[in-house]
Amino acid sequence: MNKSDQDNYFMSMSIKEALKGEDNVFPNPRVGCVIVKDGNVVSTGFHEKFGSPHAEVMAIKNLNRDIVDATLYVTLEPCNHHGKTPPCTSIINSGQIKRVVIGSSDPNSDIQNGIAALQDKGIDVEVGVNEDRARSINPRFFTYHEKKRPYIILKYAATLDGFLAEPDGKSKWITSSKSRESVQLLRSTCDAILVGRHTVEKDDPNLTSHGIGKDPIKIILDPSNKLSKEYSAIDENTIHFTSELISNSPKENIDIVLNKLFKMNIQSLLVEGGAVTLTHFIKSDMFDEIHAYYAPKLLGKGKTIFNGKKGISELLNLSIVNTEIFDNDIKITYKRD
Amino acid sequence: MNKSDQDNYFMSMSIKEALKGEDNVFPNPRVGCVIVKDGNVVSTGFHEKFGSPHAEVMAIKNLNRDIVDATLYVTLEPCNHHGKTPPCTSIINSGQIKRVVIGSSDPNSDIQNGIAALQDKGIDVEVGVNEDRARSINPRFFTYHEKKRPYIILKYAATLDGFLAEPDGKSKWITSSKSRESVQLLRSTCDAILVGRHTVEKDDPNLTSHGIGKDPIKIILDPSNKLSKEYSAIDENTIHFTSELISNSPKENIDIVLNKLFKMNIQSLLVEGGAVTLTHFIKSDMFDEIHAYYAPKLLGKGKTIFNGKKGISELLNLSIVNTEIFDNDIKITYKRD
Repeated sequence: MNKSDQDNYFMSMSIKEALKGEDNVFPNPRVGCVIVKDGNVVSTGFHEKFGSPHAEVMAIKNLNRDIVDATLYVTLEPCNHHGKTPPCTSIINSGQIKRVVIGSSDPNSDIQNGIAALQDKGIDVEVGVNEDRARSINPRFFTYHEKKRPYIILKYAATLDGFLAEPDGKSKWITSSKSRESVQLLRSTCDAILVGRHTVEKDDPNLTSHGIGKDPIKIILDPSNKLSKEYSAIDENTIHFTSELISNSPKENIDIVLNKLFKMNIQSLLVEGGAVTLTHFIKSDMFDEIHAYYAPKLLGKGKTIFNGKKGISELLNLSIVNTEIFDNDIKITYKRD
Repeated sequence: MNKSDQDNYFMSMSIKEALKGEDNVFPNPRVGCVIVKDGNVVSTGFHEKFGSPHAEVMAIKNLNRDIVDATLYVTLEPCNHHGKTPPCTSIINSGQIKRVVIGSSDPNSDIQNGIAALQDKGIDVEVGVNEDRARSINPRFFTYHEKKRPYIILKYAATLDGFLAEPDGKSKWITSSKSRESVQLLRSTCDAILVGRHTVEKDDPNLTSHGIGKDPIKIILDPSNKLSKEYSAIDENTIHFTSELISNSPKENIDIVLNKLFKMNIQSLLVEGGAVTLTHFIKSDMFDEIHAYYAPKLLGKGKTIFNGKKGISELLNLSIVNTEIFDNDIKITYKRD
């Protein structure tokens, strides 16, 4: 292997390490690290959970012999600040580590330039190896820090002919109980969940994970202040956006809401409808994934998914990243390119 | 293994043999056969293509030693008539074969009671072992003979919000070229293809397999005689149903068309739309599969899949039997339970 192939290979291995962190590291990103000496892996590490040591620290700690002139591969730029743990840059020393290969730089401005700190210590640093894959393991983290808004997932459950509900709004239940359980699981992985006023009025959803995991913070858009406080969706932690906070301009409202959620450190937002709310997010081009459920039913008439108007040559730039079957419903997960 | 487990096991093996016939045996069904002596398979056979020897004949021919008191497993009742080949019942003799185990009886009345013919020769016959699976390898054949109509596949290509075309009827192209190629392959496996008059007027589709395989016979519904002869869909072999043959009652028309196709020995019919035609077939409850393509697009407005009206508790009894991805389109294949 030449040096570039070798770098890609060990970065792939670091990415695999990072994935072991699963969802436990939030709000931190998943990070993996591999230390290599003369072409052999001498140690590995990953960030296990929020508050625990970072991947680089684990890998250095896991070294079972003294080494010099090793190369450290890490999926994300090492941090250079005191947070829950000391800065990683202080633990990486040029006596042991001659070269650091980084998948992606850190978009979080709080990290205070880890790359420069390593270079100041006389360490060779290379950034951007296998970068797309290194970034792809933390889509919510990168979107949050780079776009200054939460990562947005639109979710809907429709019939084969694209209806979310009967004409009078009845939607209980389009999909099977297994599909709905999978939605509860999805909720448990999101920091916040948002619905519009009509959905609360019609369905009064509880918007929780039903005990599967943590519950997202509930966000309700109600620009004309029509909701009383008697709904399951509204509890003491719900953020109820009324005319005090938002206007009658849907586009503006989305910006206001996303900005507030960003300031609350909310990295991921699940938008569960209804049609009006989904349409505002689609029209504003504010979404990163669509989770589409289709039940094997036809309605002929009803509430549509998208209240706007587009032509068949207008692309949404969606790629299918996953499909799952729940009884005879299908869930298709799309990601924006 | 007890006798029943053993019978199921060797019937499964016969079904695997049958599948080797693929689509080459049409209009015959796929049939497989295994001959077993003292718990060991001593020969196998399958129906390879239309006009070639049947599975039982192949299995007997493939025996490489003299046997007595063997059991012959066959997925379908052996034939008892002279067709392209001599009757199978005349080749199965009680000297060699003591017992015949049959997956499913033959719904084709032309076969003239193969079971009784075997019993008359003193052979023990058992019918209905692993019957559902034995039938499932020939859905078109069984539907054709039992329901006296072709097996009906409804196919549509829609946006995520369930539109087949823009409001003015423009549908070129909702789906990707790879999706459309897969439709051409599907056409090559069907005996006939049907569209309504509007689809011909709007799209003038050629309705062929584009050279991938054989072309289905084209069927066009035009009850008000509005189509001139200048369309690609209309050639010398097209069956153009005009007011001479059909009326203004869609339900009656479907019966007339299916009856005519049955008499023409057409075992499978692909219905490619448009919405009016699909709706008539759905309302008449005349379909066995739905092949649904969804492209990652939204229109908001346009031609719908189903022009009727149903409630969310009305089930179509569809099971997902396959999903395929073509670029970022998804094809979902549903079969009726």
